[in-house]
Amino acid sequence: MKHLLSIDDLGSAGIDEVLALTDSFVEVSSRSIPKVPALRGKTVVSLFYEDSTRTRMSFETAAKRLSADTMTFSVGTSSVKKGESIRDTVQTIEAIGADAIVVRHRSSGVPAQVANWASAAVINAGDGWHEHPTQALLDTYTIQKRLGSLEGRHIAIIGDIKHSRVARSNIKAFHAMGASVTLVAPSTLLPPSLDGWPVEVSHDLDSTLPTVDVAYVLRMQRERMSEALVPTLREYTERFGLNSRRADLLSQTAIVMHPGPMNRGVEIDAAVADRANSVVVDQVRNGVPVRMAVLFLLLGSGSEMFGSIDSFASEMESVRV
Amino acid sequence: MKHLLSIDDLGSAGIDEVLALTDSFVEVSSRSIPKVPALRGKTVVSLFYEDSTRTRMSFETAAKRLSADTMTFSVGTSSVKKGESIRDTVQTIEAIGADAIVVRHRSSGVPAQVANWASAAVINAGDGWHEHPTQALLDTYTIQKRLGSLEGRHIAIIGDIKHSRVARSNIKAFHAMGASVTLVAPSTLLPPSLDGWPVEVSHDLDSTLPTVDVAYVLRMQRERMSEALVPTLREYTERFGLNSRRADLLSQTAIVMHPGPMNRGVEIDAAVADRANSVVVDQVRNGVPVRMAVLFLLLGSGSEMFGSIDSFASEMESVRV
Amino acid sequence: MKHLLSIDDLGSAGIDEVLALTDSFVEVSSRSIPKVPALRGKTVVSLFYEDSTRTRMSFETAAKRLSADTMTFSVGTSSVKKGESIRDTVQTIEAIGADAIVVRHRSSGVPAQVANWASAAVINAGDGWHEHPTQALLDTYTIQKRLGSLEGRHIAIIGDIKHSRVARSNIKAFHAMGASVTLVAPSTLLPPSLDGWPVEVSHDLDSTLPTVDVAYVLRMQRERMSEALVPTLREYTERFGLNSRRADLLSQTAIVMHPGPMNRGVEIDAAVADRANSVVVDQVRNGVPVRMAVLFLLLGSGSEMFGSIDSFASEMESVRV
Repeated sequence: MKHLLSIDDLGSAGIDEVLALTDSFVEVSSRSIPKVPALRGKTVVSLFYEDSTRTRMSFETAAKRLSADTMTFSVGTSSVKKGESIRDTVQTIEAIGADAIVVRHRSSGVPAQVANWASAAVINAGDGWHEHPTQALLDTYTIQKRLGSLEGRHIAIIGDIKHSRVARSNIKAFHAMGASVTLVAPSTLLPPSLDGWPVEVSHDLDSTLPTVDVAYVLRMQRERMSEALVPTLREYTERFGLNSRRADLLSQTAIVMHPGPMNRGVEIDAAVADRANSVVVDQVRNGVPVRMAVLFLLLGSGSEMFGSIDSFASEMESVRV
Repeated sequence: MKHLLSIDDLGSAGIDEVLALTDSFVEVSSRSIPKVPALRGKTVVSLFYEDSTRTRMSFETAAKRLSADTMTFSVGTSSVKKGESIRDTVQTIEAIGADAIVVRHRSSGVPAQVANWASAAVINAGDGWHEHPTQALLDTYTIQKRLGSLEGRHIAIIGDIKHSRVARSNIKAFHAMGASVTLVAPSTLLPPSLDGWPVEVSHDLDSTLPTVDVAYVLRMQRERMSEALVPTLREYTERFGLNSRRADLLSQTAIVMHPGPMNRGVEIDAAVADRANSVVVDQVRNGVPVRMAVLFLLLGSGSEMFGSIDSFASEMESVRV
Repeated sequence: MKHLLSIDDLGSAGIDEVLALTDSFVEVSSRSIPKVPALRGKTVVSLFYEDSTRTRMSFETAAKRLSADTMTFSVGTSSVKKGESIRDTVQTIEAIGADAIVVRHRSSGVPAQVANWASAAVINAGDGWHEHPTQALLDTYTIQKRLGSLEGRHIAIIGDIKHSRVARSNIKAFHAMGASVTLVAPSTLLPPSLDGWPVEVSHDLDSTLPTVDVAYVLRMQRERMSEALVPTLREYTERFGLNSRRADLLSQTAIVMHPGPMNRGVEIDAAVADRANSVVVDQVRNGVPVRMAVLFLLLGSGSEMFGSIDSFASEMESVRV
């Protein structure tokens, strides 16, 4: 594997490998000096055409814990403003010395284009409504840690599926790991066709919630209002918001997830976000070791370096920075 | 001490401890490689809701000299713009891996709120008109180095006291260290009540200057004009600007201070800012070792690690990076 | 040499020294861990009053490969906006701890002013229409690597000479290294006087191209249109754009250069930019080791440390990070 553009690049075996490696990096992250020299001398460049401090900081922290150097190509203040093509920007970044390029863009497919042009490893950090694979990996890891396995689990993804790259990557990952997925949304917030998607659809949140192991709430973007896809935010919240009454419908062991940033009071009630079964902060926390695993697989000697994950783990033990 | 939110958190004993540690870090800063490994593996995050390159650079340099990693959560390009609550932002920053959060916000009390939510150490880098404790520490250190001690000294703070967090923190610090403070300002730039403030008030700069050891000039913010708190900048400069004629009223040993950035020609004359008794650049220079001391006390093994400042100093000597 | 403000500071002997050192740093850059500890403990600050992600990233990468710390004083969000003078900004940056200041400003002469005020080393990263010496050094290095030497070579610089600091620095450097330079531009894009410039002038690109070893195409800035210096972009492209037909006029061994970012389709055709004789990406790649050489000469023990470049190279070999 040279790039991570889509969950399809991994399949269930690849997801398993990333998540097993993640365990090792969780251990690294718990050390008083949470660093290993695995990627010393490598440079990881963030190329974000859309703002995202959270995702960028998570990748940068992951890179630093692997002892890589990090750099941000800030599009707002760059040659991109002067009309430079994405291809020239990518060639410039590579010539300056990038070993990995973490790309976010509002258009689907840009990271794949960048991968065609670059000899560096390319990681899709979100492209349009297409994919956000590391988000799906950290979500899958979080569920696995809480519920043991995704096999046979039932996961509801609630909200604006249509415009959500998080939903698309997660549906693929959850399905690959053996879970069944139900999308809960008004018709206007579903894609025109779901042909070939391994999902059920429901328009009734109340009847779905008692049956699920995971209630995954998507962010409701205010700009959808102006597009008249939902009548008012209040009506959306009324029908699809995860409020306290609805959260009470969940089973004792079910968990609540959200990719952040949350609009408290819109798609999720403040009280629900802070309940013990909400794992929103765990998701953020797991993002760093998951991204360490991805960077390590793409840039390190990767899985071939170590005969097995076990020997990797013991190797990690001995290579403290 | 877990956080530094206000000079009140320190008291005179705490100020003494910070300033004694500062001496050690001044020595470190003078080395050809001005670093110690004291905070290796720690991450210091700047969370600045108000711009301030100076203060942010000073904290980041301090963190780097202690071998900590640094990260900036830039609010302008972040999830904050997308409506995320400060609390969720703080939890996100912590989950990504912050050991200390340096907060600046236009509203008083935000750093204290952050401290309630965070398990990381929180440092107030300026909140509204409330406090800016590390500024007061570096000012106190600068005075101590120049004048030997603050005990019995007379310090005039000149200008817009009402809107100044620097003034509030400095009044507390100077008073705690035994100095007497006179505020010199037009009534409109004083707080509505000074009950309980350990200060004298004067509206006449010329008669005050000959009596002081320190003339501390505050920045005059142009936006005050639009609020009609002073008739015109020219008139303000006329009555309260520290021009050359007034600077001549100071005693031979008195020093001139300013927290920066200076409006040369408004609250202070260019020629006065560049006189030998102006310590404005010293203030900036001392900011780095003072902030190293604060970060070390909050994040390092702190004062318990070393039986005394002396043993700390000898320890520092041996732990060169 | 304390600062690098102009190619004049170097002369041909200085250029030779920088380029010889560059060879050593190209070797360092090719290592799996492309770093040397040469500038450990030094801090390089970027003070960019004009945006330039490319140049800033190149300098920062160079500094990091020498193990220096880097910091960006971002003018847009800084005290500069609050009316601070450049001089006070420079003194602040120095007091916080800069060993080198890399300055870009829209006005000619600002880096020279900064050098008067600073005790740190100052590097001009582009000032107005004046100079951009490290660009000229990396261009000269790129030509030398491709063509063996500049001695007796003929170089055409094509486009908006009038507003180009790149052209001014390159004319000096190319001339110093023994090349002859022809400027190819409409009269409106030439300076009012070329007295004392060691150049020929041509208004006819087609007849010049067959005679040159290097076709150096300048960026055509769209804002020139509004100044009515050229009738329309289309007409400019028609007369001075390097299209495929014109590129065919070049000799087999001639190379095409551009300082970037390119306006493909304006001053250079996309197909020409991607031909095998285009060295645009090489220019970017060489920027890092050239800037390592400049930083090392200004901040390291410099050329006195090593009896000769040869002993420097063998020294480099042994001081891997």
